[in-house]
Amino acid sequence: MRSEVLRVDMSGRTFADLTEPVSAFVADAGDGLLNVFVPHATACLVLMETGSGSEADLADALERLLPRDHRYRHRHGSPGHGADHLAPAFLGSSLTIPVLGGEPQLGTWQSIVLVDTNRDNPQRRVRLSFLGG
Amino acid sequence: MRSEVLRVDMSGRTFADLTEPVSAFVADAGDGLLNVFVPHATACLVLMETGSGSEADLADALERLLPRDHRYRHRHGSPGHGADHLAPAFLGSSLTIPVLGGEPQLGTWQSIVLVDTNRDNPQRRVRLSFLGG
Amino acid sequence: MRSEVLRVDMSGRTFADLTEPVSAFVADAGDGLLNVFVPHATACLVLMETGSGSEADLADALERLLPRDHRYRHRHGSPGHGADHLAPAFLGSSLTIPVLGGEPQLGTWQSIVLVDTNRDNPQRRVRLSFLGG
Repeated sequence: MRSEVLRVDMSGRTFADLTEPVSAFVADAGDGLLNVFVPHATACLVLMETGSGSEADLADALERLLPRDHRYRHRHGSPGHGADHLAPAFLGSSLTIPVLGGEPQLGTWQSIVLVDTNRDNPQRRVRLSFLGG
Repeated sequence: MRSEVLRVDMSGRTFADLTEPVSAFVADAGDGLLNVFVPHATACLVLMETGSGSEADLADALERLLPRDHRYRHRHGSPGHGADHLAPAFLGSSLTIPVLGGEPQLGTWQSIVLVDTNRDNPQRRVRLSFLGG
Repeated sequence: MRSEVLRVDMSGRTFADLTEPVSAFVADAGDGLLNVFVPHATACLVLMETGSGSEADLADALERLLPRDHRYRHRHGSPGHGADHLAPAFLGSSLTIPVLGGEPQLGTWQSIVLVDTNRDNPQRRVRLSFLGG
């Protein structure tokens, strides 16, 4: 298995489209499974369309479903940080994507997106791993 | 890795139980990991019990949590299409299932279910990939 | 692929931190992908921080988003059992985690957590599978 860490700066943003760097990681890889994994307890990885408003829609939905208020027992850092810790349970912390001939088999409108509502630590790592076969 | 595309017609339905065709794909496969992946930005894959009411319960929950109204910035196609684009972030676009002796190791009450609330394009593809070892 | 079943007793609890037994399973495993899979239609697997209140926060969020009342068509067992059957669609039934040198590449604050709100059957199995490469 080939594995490396991608570093992503989330300063001032909740969403980062990682499709390009992740695709570059497997460009010479042949066929196999690509695992994209965030080793952070408040960061999430999803497949979604970008650039058509869905990022803002997802931010709104998270705020509505997991409000950033004082209801949480997990309370340290910025207000609403308890909500940050629930997001990965709902959205997921990893993706496993089939790769054929070095190309992730994403649909036309799917991008690999890192989501992190936590503003206390903008430096994020994303582990990319490829298992060929 | 062995990989092929299953075509599914979702005309007039939001849920499709794919357990049979997916199981057939790995029937001669030995041991390994099976990845089931939908390359569509509004389609989801979940494991759930079918035939006992949970499909309707999940449809109701999606309607309640991600209402099909005019709140979304992503707005084209049918009303509520913005909600279709959020469902995969919450439900997921893929499943990775262990296979032993050609049998997906599902529980008695688990079925592999495609969920798509988008009625604008009923022709869906599902990529099945098997990595043995 | 190496695969075995971990048995977990959920009597009197909704959350079980499985990080230790899962890590032990891959301790001699080298590099590869670890799949953790629950073959139960009401059980979920998530990555989350434990011991800081997030378990109770997640239990509250599930109760709020998927209330344990009489709205469900899937109705047998204890009241609210229909909600138990929706949780895995939102939280997920499996995790795929990269392993390097026998160590799951979890973040400092990530634990592997089994979540099951169903109190009717506390005996749970979790399938651990490792595909090296």
